Amino acid sequence: MNAKPRLSLLADRLLGDLRPRAKSLIVTVYGDAIGPHGGTVWLGNLIGLMEGLGLSERMVRTAVFRLIKDEWLQATPIGRRSTYGLTETGWRRFEAAYRRIYAPIDIAWDGDWHLVLILASSLSAERRDELKRELAWQGFGQVGPNLLAHPNADAQELTATLGQLKMIDDVVVMKSRHVRPSQGKALKELVRESWDLDGLSKGYEGFLARFKPVQEQLKMGEATDPATAFKLRMLMLHDFRRVLLRDPLLPGELLPEKWAGSRARQMCKDIYVRLHTGAEAQLMGGLANAEGPLPPLHPSYFTRFGGFGI
Amino acid sequence: MNAKPRLSLLADRLLGDLRPRAKSLIVTVYGDAIGPHGGTVWLGNLIGLMEGLGLSERMVRTAVFRLIKDEWLQATPIGRRSTYGLTETGWRRFEAAYRRIYAPIDIAWDGDWHLVLILASSLSAERRDELKRELAWQGFGQVGPNLLAHPNADAQELTATLGQLKMIDDVVVMKSRHVRPSQGKALKELVRESWDLDGLSKGYEGFLARFKPVQEQLKMGEATDPATAFKLRMLMLHDFRRVLLRDPLLPGELLPEKWAGSRARQMCKDIYVRLHTGAEAQLMGGLANAEGPLPPLHPSYFTRFGGFGI
Repeated sequence: MNAKPRLSLLADRLLGDLRPRAKSLIVTVYGDAIGPHGGTVWLGNLIGLMEGLGLSERMVRTAVFRLIKDEWLQATPIGRRSTYGLTETGWRRFEAAYRRIYAPIDIAWDGDWHLVLILASSLSAERRDELKRELAWQGFGQVGPNLLAHPNADAQELTATLGQLKMIDDVVVMKSRHVRPSQGKALKELVRESWDLDGLSKGYEGFLARFKPVQEQLKMGEATDPATAFKLRMLMLHDFRRVLLRDPLLPGELLPEKWAGSRARQMCKDIYVRLHTGAEAQLMGGLANAEGPLPPLHPSYFTRFGGFGI
Repeated sequence: MNAKPRLSLLADRLLGDLRPRAKSLIVTVYGDAIGPHGGTVWLGNLIGLMEGLGLSERMVRTAVFRLIKDEWLQATPIGRRSTYGLTETGWRRFEAAYRRIYAPIDIAWDGDWHLVLILASSLSAERRDELKRELAWQGFGQVGPNLLAHPNADAQELTATLGQLKMIDDVVVMKSRHVRPSQGKALKELVRESWDLDGLSKGYEGFLARFKPVQEQLKMGEATDPATAFKLRMLMLHDFRRVLLRDPLLPGELLPEKWAGSRARQMCKDIYVRLHTGAEAQLMGGLANAEGPLPPLHPSYFTRFGGFGI
């Protein structure tokens, strides 16, 4: 068969549809793929790797230059060449951004909510909006004009944000639990009012529609060449993350039945696992750093998506 | 000294200032004074007792007739006369209304709040207002347009009210506790925003100003005749209750320092105890029911205001 394999065609089409920005794609490649192998490669290796993802050498050099300026990456000159690796800040940022991507499929819930009551009189409208915007990024839903709620908030992140905004004395943070006579029915209504689950569901359905053909092809047993496997994995994470950014990751008890987000995560994990061997071959085949070939995968890699055996 | 004693003059002036309504004064007399002695007296006795409180025989007969219609009182004909006593409903209502009056001075708080989140889409504006009004009577403060809060709510009363209003599925009831990074400072601000403590404080200051002269006179050792003692006690409870009705009874941690409500309750208890002997003499001196003189005080009487020894 001389025709291009179907998965390769799918990868080309997805690249054209998604058109990821160079900087964010390079961050994904570093965090997801290079990170578990130590986090550092020669610039030439990176350029080669990104070429398969549609980035020219010039585009990679420009993006890397900016990522160094933004403290994501650092260069280490060795002779006349340089290796490029994630900075400590870069690691931290990637962890924060991707923790939600690699989260387990079923998120445990202890039944507690974090509530943030905004004291009406102590903040201007602008400052209130600033707070609501910041906490919306952390998945907080707006229950009322001055009340934000989250069933699975990250307490440390919340405290850090309130501290940075200097708003600790302008809100009351509470841990809450619904009690009799309230039933699950009212809670689901609360969720429906406080988060745009319809919009989020549409986002996930789009992701599912785009990557369903990839999953089907893989299930049918089509072998992927390493370059295509790597390309599909990066594009999938990029697309999944775009939707996930707006997802408060509510516990299953509070979500509609057959929630698109759960199906999307399930599919993402399945494709990720099926692409593993190919994508790893791509990484281990050509990449190196100053010490030689990349070190083997860090064990934490296998805890992604709640853990998977290969 | 032939001049009228000062306490008697004070009682006359307070009666003129307060002008209690006949029905509510008779309920107070029954619940506070006759109740601990079995709850039933001859109508003639009641008429005599109320005369000292400025009510004519006709006014008492009219009020009692209405109180029977409203199921507060019931008449028991014995020969050609009748005794009048609290009905079971009347007892229950009095207990509910006066529980807060006889509450201990320091209200214990476990740090938990009851929150009632009103689901915005499921209730009309009228129904929402109805709910807010009902829960305001139970002391709930309005934290936001659709959020009511109470640090010491009566869970049973709340559940009963939501059931009666058929609003169980239109709200989410939560038990909440403030957590880091929130401090007491923000909580006090929340309280200031959610309850009209200034208005309440003014009410208590008025009560304090009206009854301070009585307390001073009693402390100076002026003896009271039984009729005046009884009159002062009924007027004081009537006045105290009027302010207390609007009091959410917040725990001390959440109140301003030297809170007028605490001073008022302290004064009320002090005067109540000082008037005890005189007021009891008035009750035991002339009152009777079908079995003869009234039975002695029920022990629960001495647990009022957190308990007092005589």
